[in-house]
Amino acid sequence: MQNFAVYGPIDQDLIKVEDIIRESRDVQFPWLSELLGHVLDKSGKRIRPAITLLAGRFYNYDLDRLVHMAASVELLHTATLVHDDTIDKAFVRRGTPTVNSLWDGSTAVLVGDYLFANSAEMVSRTANVRVMREFALTLMSICLGEMSQDFQAFSRRQNREHYLQRIGKKTASLFSMAAETGAVLSGAPEGVISSLKSYGYNLGMAFQITDDILDFTGQSDEMGKPVGSDLLQGTLTMPSIIYIEKCPDANPVLEFLKESRNTGSLEKALEEIVSSGSIEDAYKVANDFSMAALQALEILPQGPERGVLQQLAESNLIRRS
Amino acid sequence: MQNFAVYGPIDQDLIKVEDIIRESRDVQFPWLSELLGHVLDKSGKRIRPAITLLAGRFYNYDLDRLVHMAASVELLHTATLVHDDTIDKAFVRRGTPTVNSLWDGSTAVLVGDYLFANSAEMVSRTANVRVMREFALTLMSICLGEMSQDFQAFSRRQNREHYLQRIGKKTASLFSMAAETGAVLSGAPEGVISSLKSYGYNLGMAFQITDDILDFTGQSDEMGKPVGSDLLQGTLTMPSIIYIEKCPDANPVLEFLKESRNTGSLEKALEEIVSSGSIEDAYKVANDFSMAALQALEILPQGPERGVLQQLAESNLIRRS
Repeated sequence: MQNFAVYGPIDQDLIKVEDIIRESRDVQFPWLSELLGHVLDKSGKRIRPAITLLAGRFYNYDLDRLVHMAASVELLHTATLVHDDTIDKAFVRRGTPTVNSLWDGSTAVLVGDYLFANSAEMVSRTANVRVMREFALTLMSICLGEMSQDFQAFSRRQNREHYLQRIGKKTASLFSMAAETGAVLSGAPEGVISSLKSYGYNLGMAFQITDDILDFTGQSDEMGKPVGSDLLQGTLTMPSIIYIEKCPDANPVLEFLKESRNTGSLEKALEEIVSSGSIEDAYKVANDFSMAALQALEILPQGPERGVLQQLAESNLIRRS
Repeated sequence: MQNFAVYGPIDQDLIKVEDIIRESRDVQFPWLSELLGHVLDKSGKRIRPAITLLAGRFYNYDLDRLVHMAASVELLHTATLVHDDTIDKAFVRRGTPTVNSLWDGSTAVLVGDYLFANSAEMVSRTANVRVMREFALTLMSICLGEMSQDFQAFSRRQNREHYLQRIGKKTASLFSMAAETGAVLSGAPEGVISSLKSYGYNLGMAFQITDDILDFTGQSDEMGKPVGSDLLQGTLTMPSIIYIEKCPDANPVLEFLKESRNTGSLEKALEEIVSSGSIEDAYKVANDFSMAALQALEILPQGPERGVLQQLAESNLIRRS
């Protein structure tokens, strides 16, 4: 069982979300229960559902609707991970073998589809048209982000604008939706909804940029995937883009994308990026988004829920693992 | 352009549905427009969206909501086809190369996901919680049906009950939803909604059983897939199940599933099924469902829309291609 203590005032309610997610494994077919158990047991930090609950606490804390919304957000996130791993042919996620490696790619496609459906069913329990529509738009956005990454892979034209747009769609959209729907379901005024949405978006951007930096600096064991795996798959993230901005002409990153694509040329590219100072520059970009997230909280009343949201953004300011 | 003349009173409105589907190709990324164009241009008979519009005509014909609901139904259907083809590694669909064959499996997974999202966005335009929830439940049902097929493949325990349950979830659920949501959006009373839902369900069952029979009797060219392809993939459908019920002990179908799985043993199994009279028996089962669909229409007022719904069920009574 996870320790959710970091989320303060919503700890107990996050356990309710966990229970709802666990119940979604109770299906008619034992083989599906097993599959869902495998996918859903390996819980992450549950940061997205925590944001939904926290964002819902400033006005009318409508617990029943909020826990289903939060569960929906987490199921949607899990569905995207299952399909990502299938597309990337990844063997391990959060230290556990992926569905596509333990079963096969076809099963992983279907389980991901089922989780999308399950998350849509979960959001429908809120009986709120606005959040149901926001859910659908977010799902479209995530798909667009993933497809952009797929289609831009190995392109030497990938730039900062492409990258920020891509992670905005792929990652920040879900953080944004998690916060916005919590606010909407609590009956918050539009100004507050908009601020919490902005908080979620900026936190999501900071979160993804930091995650992408860790692909350069993390240890393979901790990350559960090899260092440099983004670049290996032809995806440029903030550090490599900053490096290319600094050295726009022939450089080992462009060289790797263009033709070599072997381990030696990858390592040379990684070393150049790290030694160029681009990692620290990338952290600065992440920090700007974290600061924007903090700023978005300023119109909210002081209190424990605002405190936890602040901590989430602040912890990303110093996150190095 | 399709000829929708068969659908009588809703012909013009079905063109509006077609326009909405076409507009969903207008996206920011040219490569995605191309992909969506490829998938959405090859329109089928549009029977599902036609049912939604027809079911919506008995009470308040709320055209704007109904055309979006109908477009959502068709997009959802298309999404499932894209993922099915990916899982089955099918090369051709409706006489056109599949996304997974022209692009690759990863792209097909993402395009299918995008179409799911797009169909959810489309249904959200109805701003009706009940149909949005029905949409999500149907998507879950379709996924369960597909997964059952996947997990039961090559099992010699597949029986009539499994088969009917599987096609109920995989196919009839969408026909049922298409009819039900049309009725709900028109403000029909519960008795009428329930009858139209039953009509859709039974028509969908008849439709799928007939389609499965054509896998035994159709010409490969007309079908766009080889004769016997279900059995080749280890899936038992109505004719093979009836044949096994007749000859429950050692027989070439069970033999094929058990070990041989080569072209010779497949052909032997197909010949046995056809010559056993199981095809005609399977048509009888399909006809029972078509009759149930016709019966469900009886509480509806007479008129051109009921006439077209009747024709759809009747045409399945004699469908041999």
